[in-house]
Parts: sequence; C-alpha cells; structure tokens
Amino acid sequence: MDDYLTADRPTFVTHLECSMTGEHYPADTLHNLSKVGRPLLVRYDLSAVGEALSRDTLSARDTDLWRWRELLPVRRAENIVSLGEIETPLIPVPKSGGERVLVKDEGRLPTGSFKARGLVMAVAMAKELGVRRIAMPTNGNAGAALAAYAARCGIETIVFCPEDTPEVNVREIAAQGSRVWRVNGLIDDCGAIVAKGAAEGRWFDFSTLKEPYRIEGKKTMGLELAAQLGWRLPDAIFYPTGGGTGLIGMWKAFDELEALGWIGSKRPRMYAVQASGCAPIVRAFEAGEEHAERWEDAHTVAAGIRVPRAVGDFLILRAVRESGGKALAVGDPAILKAVDDCARRDGLLLCPEGGATLAAYRQALRDGEVDADEEVVLFNCATGLKYPLPPASATLDRHQVIDFEAL
Amino acid sequence: MDDYLTADRPTFVTHLECSMTGEHYPADTLHNLSKVGRPLLVRYDLSAVGEALSRDTLSARDTDLWRWRELLPVRRAENIVSLGEIETPLIPVPKSGGERVLVKDEGRLPTGSFKARGLVMAVAMAKELGVRRIAMPTNGNAGAALAAYAARCGIETIVFCPEDTPEVNVREIAAQGSRVWRVNGLIDDCGAIVAKGAAEGRWFDFSTLKEPYRIEGKKTMGLELAAQLGWRLPDAIFYPTGGGTGLIGMWKAFDELEALGWIGSKRPRMYAVQASGCAPIVRAFEAGEEHAERWEDAHTVAAGIRVPRAVGDFLILRAVRESGGKALAVGDPAILKAVDDCARRDGLLLCPEGGATLAAYRQALRDGEVDADEEVVLFNCATGLKYPLPPASATLDRHQVIDFEAL
Repeated sequence: MDDYLTADRPTFVTHLECSMTGEHYPADTLHNLSKVGRPLLVRYDLSAVGEALSRDTLSARDTDLWRWRELLPVRRAENIVSLGEIETPLIPVPKSGGERVLVKDEGRLPTGSFKARGLVMAVAMAKELGVRRIAMPTNGNAGAALAAYAARCGIETIVFCPEDTPEVNVREIAAQGSRVWRVNGLIDDCGAIVAKGAAEGRWFDFSTLKEPYRIEGKKTMGLELAAQLGWRLPDAIFYPTGGGTGLIGMWKAFDELEALGWIGSKRPRMYAVQASGCAPIVRAFEAGEEHAERWEDAHTVAAGIRVPRAVGDFLILRAVRESGGKALAVGDPAILKAVDDCARRDGLLLCPEGGATLAAYRQALRDGEVDADEEVVLFNCATGLKYPLPPASATLDRHQVIDFEAL
Repeated sequence: MDDYLTADRPTFVTHLECSMTGEHYPADTLHNLSKVGRPLLVRYDLSAVGEALSRDTLSARDTDLWRWRELLPVRRAENIVSLGEIETPLIPVPKSGGERVLVKDEGRLPTGSFKARGLVMAVAMAKELGVRRIAMPTNGNAGAALAAYAARCGIETIVFCPEDTPEVNVREIAAQGSRVWRVNGLIDDCGAIVAKGAAEGRWFDFSTLKEPYRIEGKKTMGLELAAQLGWRLPDAIFYPTGGGTGLIGMWKAFDELEALGWIGSKRPRMYAVQASGCAPIVRAFEAGEEHAERWEDAHTVAAGIRVPRAVGDFLILRAVRESGGKALAVGDPAILKAVDDCARRDGLLLCPEGGATLAAYRQALRDGEVDADEEVVLFNCATGLKYPLPPASATLDRHQVIDFEAL
C-alpha cells in the first residue's frame, strides 16, 4: 500500500465555514448544520496542499478516490475505510447521445452508485470523530452506501426510506447490516423522523448536507473528471439533481483545482437536471429565486431525484447561474426513452436518473442550448441493474422441432 | 486517447493451437473448436512482445483491460470496442474471510460481471473477422455482456437461456437489443440449439470456449492480478468454476508473463470451486480422471456455476493439478451464509458464485488446506445486486407517535 494511505498526517483542513454567512467553525469536532441552519463547507490551506502535492505525484498513485487524500478531511490513516472506490470510466455514447458525449459511469462504485463517494468520506469522518450510531433518510442508494461502509467500521445504522423505495435497495441496505424502515411519506418526511431522533440524542443525523463531509467525498467527481481529461474541463456537465451534493461538490472542486493552479478559470456550464414531476430547483431557477420552495405531490420514475426540498438549494442555484448553465426538467417518457435508446444502441444500461441527463442533453441540443460539437459529460449516478426493466423474452420448447427461420 | 489504442499494428499473434493435440491453425480467420472438438488457444510471439512492451510502459497506461493490447488478439484499432473495462479492485474482507483474504470484485465491469472481459474480446474479434450474427447459450451474465458489446458494434445477437434464469438477467439482455429465448432445459441444452443453428449456417456459435477469443479476454484477470500485486502472485486463488474459461485463461496468462520475464515460476494454488449440486470437475478431480462426465440433475443457488458439462474440462483439471490446488464443492447453505456474512460484516455484497469462493476458502482453512497467513484471492464474478436478497424491512407510520426506543 502506498504511503499516502498509511501515513498519518495533519490534514490540510483549516476550518469549516457556513455556506450562507461565512462564519467559521472549528475542524475536528462533530457538526451538522450551521447556526443559521445551512450546510457547512470544509476549507483547506490550499497553498500548503500545493507544496505537498503535485499533479505528477498524483499521477503516480493508484487512481482511486483516496489518491486525493490531501484534499480530503480524514486525518488518521486508520480511519480510512474503503470498498474499492475506483476512478469511474468515461464512456462515449455516440449513437444515443453524440460524438462528444461521455457518460461518467458512477454505477461502478461500491454499492453501485455515486452515493459511495459521499458516504465513504462521511463514515470515515464519523469513525474519526467517534460516532457510534447513525440515522439517515434515503431514496435507496445513499442508505446502501451508508450501511456498507458503517458495517465495515462497526458503526450502527438505522435507515428510513419512502414506502415505495424499490425493493432491491431496501434489501441491499438490510443485507449490509442496517435496520431499515419504510415510512408512508417522501424523503423529507423520513428526514423529519431522523431529525427528531437526533434532537433526542439517539443518533447522529446523516441527512444530505446536514453533515459536512459527504460533499467532500462527492467533490472527487470534479477532481477526477479534471484529471481524466488531462487537467481541463468539458464544455458542459449534465447532473441529475436531487439534494445536489455532487453538483455543489464539483463546483467547489473546480475552485480548489484553480487555486492550486492545476486548471484555469474556464468552467463547464452546469445543467441541473430534474424530473418534470419534481422540479423545485428548475422552478426557482426560472423565477430567479435564490431558494426553492417545497415541490408538492412529487412523482417520477427517477426516484433518486425525487427530492421535494433541498437544504442546499441556494448553493445549487448559485453554481448553475455562475456557470452559465441552467436547471432543466424532463418528463418520465423522455427519461425512459433515453434509457432504452442508450442500452439498445450504445450497449450501456443507465439508471433512470442517468437517463434523465441524456434526455436533458437531447432537449438542450434541440433548443440550441448546447452545440453538437461541444464536449459534454453526463452523470450516470447508479447502475441500471438496480431498476426494473421491461419484461421481454419468449419461450422455446427444446423437445419440439425448432423453426430457426422464426427465431 | 493513448496511441496504443489508436494505432493499427500487426498483432503479435502467430497462430492458434489445438489445446488437445497441439495442431496449428491460422490466425485471422474464423474458428470454433479444433478438428478433434477441443478449444483453440491463441499463441503469441512473446519475445517480440517483450521487445515492444515493458512493465514501465504498461504502468504509464490507463489501467483498463486494453492496456494489455500487445497480449491481445485485436489487430485494427477501429475494432476495439469498449464500455470501460476498468481494472477491478482487490477488497480485503478481514471479518468474514481473514486478514490476507482479498476479493477481486469483478462486478464492477460493464454489465456487472466478469463475462465482460471475455465478451469484449470475442465481440471485437467477431467485428474484425466480419461476423454479422451471433448466437449464444447463457446462464445470464454472458448473454448480457454479449448483447451490450454487440449492440455497440451493430452485430445481431440471439441468446438462449435456461427457463429459470433470473428475470433481471433476461431483461438486461433484451434491453441491450438482443433477442432472448427461455428454453426448458439447462445451459448445455441451450448450447445444442445454438450448435444446430450454427451447423445450418444461421449464426456464429459463441458458446464458452467454442470460439478462441473469450479466453484471451478472461486471461486479463491473471495479467491484472500480477500487475496489481507488484508483479508477484498470491499463494492461492479460489475461482468459481462453470465453464472454467477464467481459470484456464489465468493459467495461460501466468505462463505468458513468465515467458516475458515479468514474473517468476511461482504459481498460486488454483482452487476450482463448484456447488455440491453441480460438481462435475470436483468428481473428476477426486477420481483422478482427465475428463469430467456430465452432471445429471444439476441444481444450486449459484446459477452461474450450474454447468453440467465443460468443453474445457481437461484444461481446468490440468491447471488445478499442476498448481497443487484442488477442485472443491460447497453446499448452498454455506454459499448463502458466506454471502450474508460478507455483506453484514465487511459491507461487501457478493454474488452467490462469489459467496461460493468464500465458503470454499473457509472450508479449506478448516481442513488445513490453506493457512490463515497465506495471501488468498477470491473471485467475485458478478455484482451481488443482480441476485435476489432476502426481504427485510419494517414499516413506520409517520402520522403516529414514534417510539424511538423500539427502532
């Protein structure tokens, strides 16, 4: 094992900062939201990081998530937890997307989704800070990642999910040793239960952006993308947006990379993709609002982005606007068609949320929002294998004469 | 893209060779089995490979499967097909296995299984050799990989699977554009239908080891393992054995690496793991036979290794014996317990076939066949998410007063 994984070191974390007010909070203690109820962002001494780490040093390391250790908050090597967070591949989808459209296939991560990036970091920090019991609301994939990493560390977990969460997700969470409850409501209803228990001191609240370290794990999507593309960024990124941790994280990553002098000031246009049946960020974007109101009666086949209210709404909207991008909504039929086309024509099975990014790209292309010759990255946030596929087989009796012409 | 992926080159393939008689066959033409009905092996000019490629050159390349291009048969760059065949991670399972037990997690490959390694190569070669229509019998995962790569190349595919193949596999195959038939029989019954259609000239037969290139793709498991471990090999490998292509492929890879001078003569003990309900190789191994008879009434939860008869039986048995390993059978209860333990304690969800390797390792440890301080690699051949998990959730009414003590 390389020494950056085994050597203890002071992290380069200087402090945490309220994303709304800028108020400072100390590192190395447990935090949820800031005093004004907003997410905390982790800040680093980036000039010290730049002295400790070069792009050449990075290139010599294994390509997994922990190669970025100097830009991550874990202090002691013994608290690094891992299930093999590989660098996810960029897969061209020339037939269903276009010549310069790449899918970053996050379904290859542990537990089959990009939630592993956030949770590996949050659990490692929970371990470092002595947390023994964690609760979380989830639409499925985050709960699976939490359960897996916490099981590995011997941390107890309790997970609450909406009652219509796909059975495969619920069973995966339970198989990995978590106690899992189905709640008659949506993810924010589950979040309310977690918050109540946390207020009573029963567990630590791991809701999206309510603890500061998931975003640090998620930002590795941005770090990795820059490294994979030879220290430049694509023209546009289409990101399936529920809680938006990844979009916020990538935006933060790009700033950190620029501060290190590893990339320039050029940024991709960030497209926050939501489903028409649950599009609070799109509504706020179009209305010019800084915050997004709760979306009532949320419904979409893309359960992972069925998030009626996001605590980081203003951070998502800010990043999208600064980037020159947009928030876009796509309907379920377009999502399902995109999934079908990509599998059938490019051999790549997307999850519905990944399908939403392809559908949004197609819509943006039609609307002249992107050009066909621009380099675009779509995030497929989970393996398509977790989601129901249409039935499609016929039976053949081997004892009968087979009509080969008809096969 | 690096030039080893874009530059055309003569391959280093010199010829193909009958694995039974040693008779030579020309490269660059279509082949199924040799004249005596046995698999063909691809042979290379390894001294020329050694001049063209060094371990340092390899280290500078991206770590995916195509880094091994000089040891692979594809001639023209335009025929390289890819869905992101990443180097699969080695994941320690200290609690359910042991301190030096590593799981090579092949579920991270495209279509969620190690079948992608074989099929990416076989489909690329089919493209290179002008094949337009392919048929294959499958227990599920191979069909999914075939469908995906062939869809990407525009090659037509027809897949036959046993009637009780898991629904998720069948749907995945269909979603990726293949025509799929359920047959009232086992995989060799499906194979008979494919053989009949091939004899009538309706399609090219892609059955395990019946075309020569899947084994070349599968051998990258051995190449990759050596590179990941710093050009040495583990003490023992536990491999879930149905058709055995991977075991045969790794054994071939080790010889090629030794011929290149990149590893020494030390080999891992190879353990071919089968299920008690379908263990033809184990029976032949124990009886000292060179070939294995068909196993009647095959049944096991590990459908991927439910292969009653393997055309490469003698190659599997030869490798196992030369290595000083064994063929081992484990029962379904031990398989299911291993899957459960590994998920619950190490946070890693194995497929049943991967669970079989952990069960076999535990059995071998109890029997003194392996020592606890030996370095062991278990192959988890597919993502555990494709397989049914036990139901395990409770419901909670958010409108009622919640008894937090009881959660």
